[in-house]
Amino acid sequence: MKTLIKDVLVVTMVEGITPFRGDILLEGDSITAIHPLITDDVNEVIQGKGMIAMPGLINAHQHSPMSLLRGFSDDLKLMDWLEKKMLPAEARMTPEDIYWGSKLAMAEMIKSGTTAFADMYIQMNEIALAVEEVGMRASLTRGLVFLQDDGGRRVQEALDLIDRWSGKAQGRITTMLGPHAPYTCLPEPLKEIISLAVKRNIPIHIHLAETKEEVIQMREKYQQTPTEYLYQLGLFEQAHVLLAHGVHLNHRDIGLLKGMRGGVAHNPVSNLKLGCGIAPIMDLLRFGITVGIGTDGAGSASTLDMFEEIKAATWLQKLDYGDPTVLPARQVLRMATIESAKLLKIDSEVGTLEVGKKADIILIDGNKPHLLPLHNVESALAYCVNGADVDTTIVNGKLLMRHRQLLTINEEELFKQVSVRAKRIVEGI
Amino acid sequence: MKTLIKDVLVVTMVEGITPFRGDILLEGDSITAIHPLITDDVNEVIQGKGMIAMPGLINAHQHSPMSLLRGFSDDLKLMDWLEKKMLPAEARMTPEDIYWGSKLAMAEMIKSGTTAFADMYIQMNEIALAVEEVGMRASLTRGLVFLQDDGGRRVQEALDLIDRWSGKAQGRITTMLGPHAPYTCLPEPLKEIISLAVKRNIPIHIHLAETKEEVIQMREKYQQTPTEYLYQLGLFEQAHVLLAHGVHLNHRDIGLLKGMRGGVAHNPVSNLKLGCGIAPIMDLLRFGITVGIGTDGAGSASTLDMFEEIKAATWLQKLDYGDPTVLPARQVLRMATIESAKLLKIDSEVGTLEVGKKADIILIDGNKPHLLPLHNVESALAYCVNGADVDTTIVNGKLLMRHRQLLTINEEELFKQVSVRAKRIVEGI
Repeated sequence: MKTLIKDVLVVTMVEGITPFRGDILLEGDSITAIHPLITDDVNEVIQGKGMIAMPGLINAHQHSPMSLLRGFSDDLKLMDWLEKKMLPAEARMTPEDIYWGSKLAMAEMIKSGTTAFADMYIQMNEIALAVEEVGMRASLTRGLVFLQDDGGRRVQEALDLIDRWSGKAQGRITTMLGPHAPYTCLPEPLKEIISLAVKRNIPIHIHLAETKEEVIQMREKYQQTPTEYLYQLGLFEQAHVLLAHGVHLNHRDIGLLKGMRGGVAHNPVSNLKLGCGIAPIMDLLRFGITVGIGTDGAGSASTLDMFEEIKAATWLQKLDYGDPTVLPARQVLRMATIESAKLLKIDSEVGTLEVGKKADIILIDGNKPHLLPLHNVESALAYCVNGADVDTTIVNGKLLMRHRQLLTINEEELFKQVSVRAKRIVEGI
Repeated sequence: MKTLIKDVLVVTMVEGITPFRGDILLEGDSITAIHPLITDDVNEVIQGKGMIAMPGLINAHQHSPMSLLRGFSDDLKLMDWLEKKMLPAEARMTPEDIYWGSKLAMAEMIKSGTTAFADMYIQMNEIALAVEEVGMRASLTRGLVFLQDDGGRRVQEALDLIDRWSGKAQGRITTMLGPHAPYTCLPEPLKEIISLAVKRNIPIHIHLAETKEEVIQMREKYQQTPTEYLYQLGLFEQAHVLLAHGVHLNHRDIGLLKGMRGGVAHNPVSNLKLGCGIAPIMDLLRFGITVGIGTDGAGSASTLDMFEEIKAATWLQKLDYGDPTVLPARQVLRMATIESAKLLKIDSEVGTLEVGKKADIILIDGNKPHLLPLHNVESALAYCVNGADVDTTIVNGKLLMRHRQLLTINEEELFKQVSVRAKRIVEGI
């Protein structure tokens, strides 16, 4: 199967290549040519005139089933949000709810140009089934809280997920181990998980220093910052680590992260909406630490629109430095594509448009009043485009959305399912 | 002509009225009934099932023709942005360019749910013609710089605009006097404009304390803050004043604004993108000062999507206070509607959905994955909706957009005009 995307403005996100007008040839799941004019015989032509082609966005931190709780508990204090709203609601979620909630998240992600995501939740088998069916790319992690002995049940579930789903769904599914956060994981079990990760070469996905309260709590309990706690347990020595948030890092913390494999998933909208603070992104970058972008769950961030996160990420650094030149368009777009891919350890496969990579591509319809005139395509992508401008989403060479119609999800059924389920889950809370 | 909007979720923005499902009756340019079930015979029915109806958004500060320069000079220092890019480009704009640039801005505004705007620019007659033709509501202001004597030319243009256009276009056009900013207006001419405004009862639209540099410059020149400078010239005593930005206000400045007529137009996205800072919105509100929301020109803000400004406004206050309960959904939505209307002095006509008010209404299509489930409609409007979710835009009882098709603007012609003109304007800069 050969597909030709014709006459698009190609934004490869490869360093040193400026955007150009051309064609993209897909064969099977891969990109086999990118060129100003491709004349091959093909099975299918996607006319791209007026469209911008770029790598699919990669959401580096998510809790997809929380989409069922979107808007359920806004404008509340963090602890009220968590304890009075999120936890009681999550306790009522059935495996089927999790399946439908993650599918809702995937519908939104495909419609806003996200092609791959890192997800940490429970009942991950349900999410894996939805990923397989829907056709997205995902790095799946069973979240692990180690405050009480559960007889190894959670770790067993995590290993089951890894054994059953790693490399499955045509290679679209990868897996990680997910100790939840420094303040929810006691040292001994956390050390064991780190050894397991190193021994089996499994990456780790963990929250870090999201709130000031977390830093205070860790200081009281361990006389360490959350980063020092993880460092001292050896987390950054050998494992590939996806650190979510990293808002409250001091300079010594950032020094400890220097040279780490993996990096930090920045979630600016969630950090803003929960009043957490501005992550020190420019400092992390100065120390050579990879920074990608995620949304966090829709329970806090409200939406999963990565174009909104791109805007928020660059705005916040400009604000923090009082300098509009900080974190310019191309750099923040790379964070949402190839840099996020590095965090998910899938950068050899996706994250840029290059021959030999998997065909994870989005087409953006530039024929809109808010995108014209097009003085600079990277500026338009970083500062003007929103999720609704995505016309076509392709993952692994397969069309998941064309002209804003989802092709692997029945929206009508989805909306019915999520409305009924969401209502039941929050009733009386 | 009677039109019935059937079966919508009505968000009136009137204090104390919670959203409810119902119908809205329009007769001519006005709202004549809002009720759970209206059974009148009508000429036209707009089926609203699955839609949210709310007052059209009001953009309280804009420079509409700058849409032609969108994305032309991002990621630059403020002075480079202004001096090397904006000013040379603006110098090349013809009256026709300004007409088409403002029409581009109106196309974007209508498509993202804005029904009224306050505009400050030059060649205002061109913008007034476009407003009349397109059908939006606007407060138009000729920007006045008083650093050199121009023999009264600018003031004459301002008065011509006011005489020719005030109350025209079925009352949709109002006008203001626009001394540009404290640092661009010397005391004597500014005092004269204030007297003129007071004598003729014309509101004033002026920039205030957008950057730290402005505060330093005013301090050096006058030993006053920008706010003290305006206060001492008597600006806040009698005139209705629309203050744009108000980012760098200290507590004494805010005290001086207490009791003022008019208020502050907050432009969070522009302030972020130019690295200006966070305006002290909660302090202004505590002093009883009206705060509305604007976008500023697309030359800095990139887009004119008021839903993006709504999000940015609440995010920034939550960030500034480290508290997610600050500036909750309903309050920020009121800022973008009725509070902005107060700044434009059109709050007796628009800004809420109420019987007797003009029919400036938008319908938002809630049937989208990023808007479901709908646990709380105000949360959805503040944190999830973006401009592309607006399905229908009505101004003064007239449909300007239906199912995302513009009805008073020919988009094809518009896009052709702006692409050619924008290219010519920036060529070689």
